[in-house]
Amino acid sequence: MINIEMEALGKKRSAIRELFEQGKLLKEKYGNDKVYDFSIGNPSIPCPKKVNDTLIDLLSIANSKDSDENYDKIDTYKPLNSNLLHGYSSAQGDVDVRNAISKYLNITYNADTSGNLIYLTTGAAAALSISLKAITSGKSSDEVIVFAPYFPEYLVFIKNANATPIAVLPDKNTFYPDLNDFKNKINKNTSAVIVNSPNNPTGVLYAEDVIENICKILKEKEIEYNHPIYLISDEPYRELIYVDKKYPFITNYYTNSIITYSFSKSISIPGERIGYILINKNADNANDVYAAICGAGRSLGYVCATTLFQQLIPHILGITSDISIYKNYAELFSKELTNIGFEVIKPDGAFYLFVKALCDDDNEFSKKALEYNLLIVPSESFGIKGYVRIAYCVTKKQIIDSLPKFKELYNYYKH
Amino acid sequence: MINIEMEALGKKRSAIRELFEQGKLLKEKYGNDKVYDFSIGNPSIPCPKKVNDTLIDLLSIANSKDSDENYDKIDTYKPLNSNLLHGYSSAQGDVDVRNAISKYLNITYNADTSGNLIYLTTGAAAALSISLKAITSGKSSDEVIVFAPYFPEYLVFIKNANATPIAVLPDKNTFYPDLNDFKNKINKNTSAVIVNSPNNPTGVLYAEDVIENICKILKEKEIEYNHPIYLISDEPYRELIYVDKKYPFITNYYTNSIITYSFSKSISIPGERIGYILINKNADNANDVYAAICGAGRSLGYVCATTLFQQLIPHILGITSDISIYKNYAELFSKELTNIGFEVIKPDGAFYLFVKALCDDDNEFSKKALEYNLLIVPSESFGIKGYVRIAYCVTKKQIIDSLPKFKELYNYYKH
Repeated sequence: MINIEMEALGKKRSAIRELFEQGKLLKEKYGNDKVYDFSIGNPSIPCPKKVNDTLIDLLSIANSKDSDENYDKIDTYKPLNSNLLHGYSSAQGDVDVRNAISKYLNITYNADTSGNLIYLTTGAAAALSISLKAITSGKSSDEVIVFAPYFPEYLVFIKNANATPIAVLPDKNTFYPDLNDFKNKINKNTSAVIVNSPNNPTGVLYAEDVIENICKILKEKEIEYNHPIYLISDEPYRELIYVDKKYPFITNYYTNSIITYSFSKSISIPGERIGYILINKNADNANDVYAAICGAGRSLGYVCATTLFQQLIPHILGITSDISIYKNYAELFSKELTNIGFEVIKPDGAFYLFVKALCDDDNEFSKKALEYNLLIVPSESFGIKGYVRIAYCVTKKQIIDSLPKFKELYNYYKH
Repeated sequence: MINIEMEALGKKRSAIRELFEQGKLLKEKYGNDKVYDFSIGNPSIPCPKKVNDTLIDLLSIANSKDSDENYDKIDTYKPLNSNLLHGYSSAQGDVDVRNAISKYLNITYNADTSGNLIYLTTGAAAALSISLKAITSGKSSDEVIVFAPYFPEYLVFIKNANATPIAVLPDKNTFYPDLNDFKNKINKNTSAVIVNSPNNPTGVLYAEDVIENICKILKEKEIEYNHPIYLISDEPYRELIYVDKKYPFITNYYTNSIITYSFSKSISIPGERIGYILINKNADNANDVYAAICGAGRSLGYVCATTLFQQLIPHILGITSDISIYKNYAELFSKELTNIGFEVIKPDGAFYLFVKALCDDDNEFSKKALEYNLLIVPSESFGIKGYVRIAYCVTKKQIIDSLPKFKELYNYYKH
């Protein structure tokens, strides 16, 4: 009586993981420095020193509080002894931490958010899985729109909520969504739309007017169908922007909006799983949506976000890893690949280059690249054909050393 | 289109949380030291100093590795720089950590487990939610048996897997399961059985022959219905045992067994959410079950267990908080309540006393206790009537100060 779908999902590695495993074999054969692994979005810049320093402080203070042998007399909340530092928080997360996040967002983005509508999560994946379960009815007729190319796990989380994913095509010049296609794919069953900017896998940042147009269409459709259509803005790359473009903060543009956020990429701690869900305080029945988030979190087995990392948050809001390094990598790599002859989508942010494959079949192209010890992800798994994703969260040395291999790969197809 | 069930689940606090909130109001009114809160199973003994010390070491080493400015040259795996310490692990968790757990279990319990069949989780709640989703078909005809009195969240996780919970009555003398009732409630739709010993809420440890009898019945039923019936042993209190009784390690007794474990209680870090699932290596199609676990984890939004706490595990296996304190509390509290006249189930482990209510309606009894500023949980939410749960993971002072109030409560009913 094993769950067949879960078994299949567990056995079928994502294309990215599959490549990662093939890379491991190549590395054993040729050596680490002879294999150019651009498959995984694992931050390569260390976390700000303040991350480890703050964690050490919190733990040291807890130790000193404990050694008072005064743990019978817990009356101050902060600084915390071990029981308070490592103990359960409320399911939503520590209220002071949630208020600190809200205050930071309000100042930074001139937004109007409330800590009462923030729910701390075990990373952005949990935030998405919980949000999707909360705002879909549980009937498979519910549809959730994603903009291709999209992060493949969106489909997994949509299916977990028993809803149906609907993909909207991109404009191949800008890699913004094709708004006509978007309009056509909204119907009475549309529960939610997921937007992801800066985008994985393209690195494109949606300009303000793109967000405005998406919101305008959604507002019209909400009126037409007389129910909320939630706009989920998935923002793990929010701080990883390398161009001088305004970041349109979604609650300033659309009422029924939900943000899913992770600290994974901005401060390089993806393994620690800490992020949040934020409900727009002006959303229809915002408190009911929040209650559904709490219920969905409980149902999926999330008790609270890891409390040590909750306590880290107020200390690192507004701080990022040295992302100027990614910016340099993006410029260097993009320029060099373009010089070789590749067609590269201009990277605005995140840490991915989206590059046109040199043959129609991106899977075949990725396989061919493996022969040159280049690990690059075919775009099919992101919902469109004919491209590859190159994650440049690696070392400068790897980028430079890989260039002759990209040249050879290019020559294979073009000469 | 908010999910109605999730909204209801988010709004309807558990009985325990409800009491906790009422306690907060009482504390504001009367002062913290005048309210005797026995509602929540939040460990009151600090974590072993080694927990904080090890975490500080891991973070300090990462800092020093980072400052080498050598993060371009990652070739050693351990000790870890920040990117490796805080980076993604595989979904199952770090292989060295999993092997360390397996080795520890094999030595401690004379067991035969494999690190390849351990999956690190975000605590025991995640472990249960993932396991139940993995080993039920997704059809509501699937049944999962729980032994009353049971941890109420079992029902939430069973329903999340779309299965149906079936409760088996206890023997009211021993608070072991009533084996006749158990036998009668197994049928062709039974997918799994959850056993929890030492037990929340009774504190009872199942003796070896009880486990043997449960397994014997299950084996017969597996043959009768010709499919596996998984025995999930939920073991967050495994190390919290105060009597000289053998702990029957489940994989030594039953083939199709799965352990869900958490480090929350044994080392007092419940907020950090770290635990694991272990599949018996001799289980039917063990690797397929494991794949389904991986798939279910992915589907629910679990990417990996927090990596800092993964790295802690090998350093603290076999270490616990000073549980002799809980043992003293159990003996003291149990003796004093018995002297007053209460009927107390003998506590073998965990940190709960299960006490007979002094009137038929345990909800009414819990409400009456509130009038004496005593917060004790009615047993109805654990699936049986007529008792209350008293969590004694508090301070000795609170236990002693509460005794006159328990005396007054007793006198109210008996005089």
